[in-house]
Amino acid sequence: MGIAPVISVVGKSNVGKTTLLEKLVAELARRGHRVATIKHDTHGFDIDKPGKDTWRLAQAGSAAVVISSPTKMALIRNVEREATLDEIAAMLEDDVDLILTEGYKRGNKPKIEVFRQGAADSLLCTEDELIAIATDTVQPLRVPQFGLDDAAGLADFLEEKYISKADDRTVSLTINGVRVRLKEFPTSVIDRTIKGLVSALDNIPEEGTIVLKVYRGRK
Amino acid sequence: MGIAPVISVVGKSNVGKTTLLEKLVAELARRGHRVATIKHDTHGFDIDKPGKDTWRLAQAGSAAVVISSPTKMALIRNVEREATLDEIAAMLEDDVDLILTEGYKRGNKPKIEVFRQGAADSLLCTEDELIAIATDTVQPLRVPQFGLDDAAGLADFLEEKYISKADDRTVSLTINGVRVRLKEFPTSVIDRTIKGLVSALDNIPEEGTIVLKVYRGRK
Repeated sequence: MGIAPVISVVGKSNVGKTTLLEKLVAELARRGHRVATIKHDTHGFDIDKPGKDTWRLAQAGSAAVVISSPTKMALIRNVEREATLDEIAAMLEDDVDLILTEGYKRGNKPKIEVFRQGAADSLLCTEDELIAIATDTVQPLRVPQFGLDDAAGLADFLEEKYISKADDRTVSLTINGVRVRLKEFPTSVIDRTIKGLVSALDNIPEEGTIVLKVYRGRK
Repeated sequence: MGIAPVISVVGKSNVGKTTLLEKLVAELARRGHRVATIKHDTHGFDIDKPGKDTWRLAQAGSAAVVISSPTKMALIRNVEREATLDEIAAMLEDDVDLILTEGYKRGNKPKIEVFRQGAADSLLCTEDELIAIATDTVQPLRVPQFGLDDAAGLADFLEEKYISKADDRTVSLTINGVRVRLKEFPTSVIDRTIKGLVSALDNIPEEGTIVLKVYRGRK
């Protein structure tokens, strides 16, 4: 799928970010898109329940705990610092065609602000930070405005401006978890070189995704 | 870190697999190892709490939900079939130096059986399926046997036989999520080719891990 675009849904407390995201995710899923959502939690979180096996294994000092079932998989990792949106996106990219974040006002991704009169006095972002707003009252801004229930309108907007522009290149390169943007010539050289190298190996399927990791700075 | 060895801790119900794993993980963590644990759940699981934001976003149809905090990160994905241990290991490999699974009796990984008299009548595995057993009663088997509390003995055994043998190669190749074992010559060719290609790009750090993904069967 290549690089999925990341869009942040921001807004002050209690304006209805999660409610809007719910509607938008449902509408996009109905249209056949695979959407990932990222929620920022500054306070830490307890997704696991005390006393359960996975909780016990995490408490014992597991760096990562995975629970795998036929329909769902969960991975809980201890991290030394908060992951960046680009790092999370790199982890998800093969799986989804759009990534929506709840919050991440300080992130560097295109933002949609949710604004509801009565819940907030003013907008969180300035006009030039926003690609759209979802609101119950028209705002004096020159960005597209959608009603708080207009999931279809927002989905049209995202499809036209972002999902269709999703990166469809055949090569993705990440160095130390940071995406490297490649121009056309290096993309083509890397694409053909890797395909050529892999085709010289025995018993390799001719289709599908090749992932190569090279560890530098090691013997 | 390369390829982390995967060891399965198996045994009949209620013999104390989680309890043994807790002790073993704590002992290995104390020795400075980064250990991941994988728990198999045949019935599906509810790691998330109804009504919480992440639960609402999952219910709305998110293909994946991520919660990110400064100390922990959780990723919950819907899957179409259960992931294999190799697929999960590929996801974790850069992060840990040993992967312990609870259960996965039918998996193809080296197995340690936990046996406790009174909790089970007989062993779950045959002698040739096991690399060790942890038990409160000596078993007529020619595999190393450890007491149920002997986390230090088991950790010594794993360090000597498995962790020190962890793959220290500089290249890992995965095709469609399945690891491809590379011999020395192709490893060396791929290693040098990728490093050469990447060094020709502008503004690339000289150290650290290079991850290249090439999508085949696309324009």
